[in-house]
Amino acid sequence: MGAVNSANTITTVTTVDRVPKQDRSRATRQRLLEAAVACLAEHGWTGSTVAVVAERAGVSRGAAQHHFPTREDLFTAAVEYVAEERSLALRALFPQGAAGDRRAVVAALVDLYTGPLFRAALHLWVAASNEDQLRPRVTELEARVGRETHRIAVDLLAADEPRPGVRETVQGLLDMARGLGLANLLTDDAQRREGVVTQWATLLDDALGRVTDGAA
Amino acid sequence: MGAVNSANTITTVTTVDRVPKQDRSRATRQRLLEAAVACLAEHGWTGSTVAVVAERAGVSRGAAQHHFPTREDLFTAAVEYVAEERSLALRALFPQGAAGDRRAVVAALVDLYTGPLFRAALHLWVAASNEDQLRPRVTELEARVGRETHRIAVDLLAADEPRPGVRETVQGLLDMARGLGLANLLTDDAQRREGVVTQWATLLDDALGRVTDGAA
Repeated sequence: MGAVNSANTITTVTTVDRVPKQDRSRATRQRLLEAAVACLAEHGWTGSTVAVVAERAGVSRGAAQHHFPTREDLFTAAVEYVAEERSLALRALFPQGAAGDRRAVVAALVDLYTGPLFRAALHLWVAASNEDQLRPRVTELEARVGRETHRIAVDLLAADEPRPGVRETVQGLLDMARGLGLANLLTDDAQRREGVVTQWATLLDDALGRVTDGAA
Repeated sequence: MGAVNSANTITTVTTVDRVPKQDRSRATRQRLLEAAVACLAEHGWTGSTVAVVAERAGVSRGAAQHHFPTREDLFTAAVEYVAEERSLALRALFPQGAAGDRRAVVAALVDLYTGPLFRAALHLWVAASNEDQLRPRVTELEARVGRETHRIAVDLLAADEPRPGVRETVQGLLDMARGLGLANLLTDDAQRREGVVTQWATLLDDALGRVTDGAA
């Protein structure tokens, strides 16, 4: 009876405990991912190890390695996680679409490429270009994030993609956004960027055709 | 008499020797700069030291340090040197200007951002973003190279810069070129790039106004 009781008690405790434990585990994972991105953006690949990130996240090294057995696991997961968060945030900015205000869409797309996520991703790309272990994973991740960003851009710009030239117009816009991100790496380029965004939003409007009714 | 003779002989030898010595020194300097860019592109900032570059250039470490006392001196000089060579090469491509063929100019500008120089510059920018010693010099260098590239682009595109929006149009084009360079870092992006260049050359032609006569 005592044994049964014990077993019951243990089972009960385990069941009761399971949900918070999963929550805790998820919260730990998320803290590690966010710390990894911040660390990569600030210190670059060379200065970013699992130990440094674990300390920053306030997580034991063992727990960090339980979630992410290798440094490559941690950093590719981190950049992917934040990129997904950004995609969600971008879509949330324009819940009904934003066809009428292409300037706002261009500005929001360009914003994806400034700030800590872009810096972190840039460090990861540059490290991957010289490290054989990292390259395939980062290349695959980059292709996935790139496709998703392109899809969102086409939607928000109300671009008629099958029309000749439209696909390449949107691709070039995202390349421009990436280049603006790079230009912002060493200096605060916000003012110049503002002018470029305004001008290319106009050119884009001409290229894609007006979507607001009545115009032209 | 012997002393005078000696002095004369020494003077003569020195004079005769001076020109080749300067040539040799210049050649050594250039070998170091080219080796530095190749090294930076292949191994990144962390893997690029004066010693590694000297060995690659076949120059003694002492001679390398005579030309470039610090690592920062060597690598900023290297990226500047190659950027200048590229600017000269770009102008030489279109000796009579290229107003009639904007597609060719856009392609040539984009070419500036692919290949080893861009990779080397990218490593330098990323390293500079995390290293206080390097940042001011790289920022200043980047501003100088950027202005020069902009000037060449305006010339070759026959862009009427005082017209509103033209400056920002050209800036956005160069940002796009930089972004295409970044997209080419991990994978061979030549085919996609080709399509973007063609389409953006068309957009640019519309934005800047046709320059070939007759084409309204």
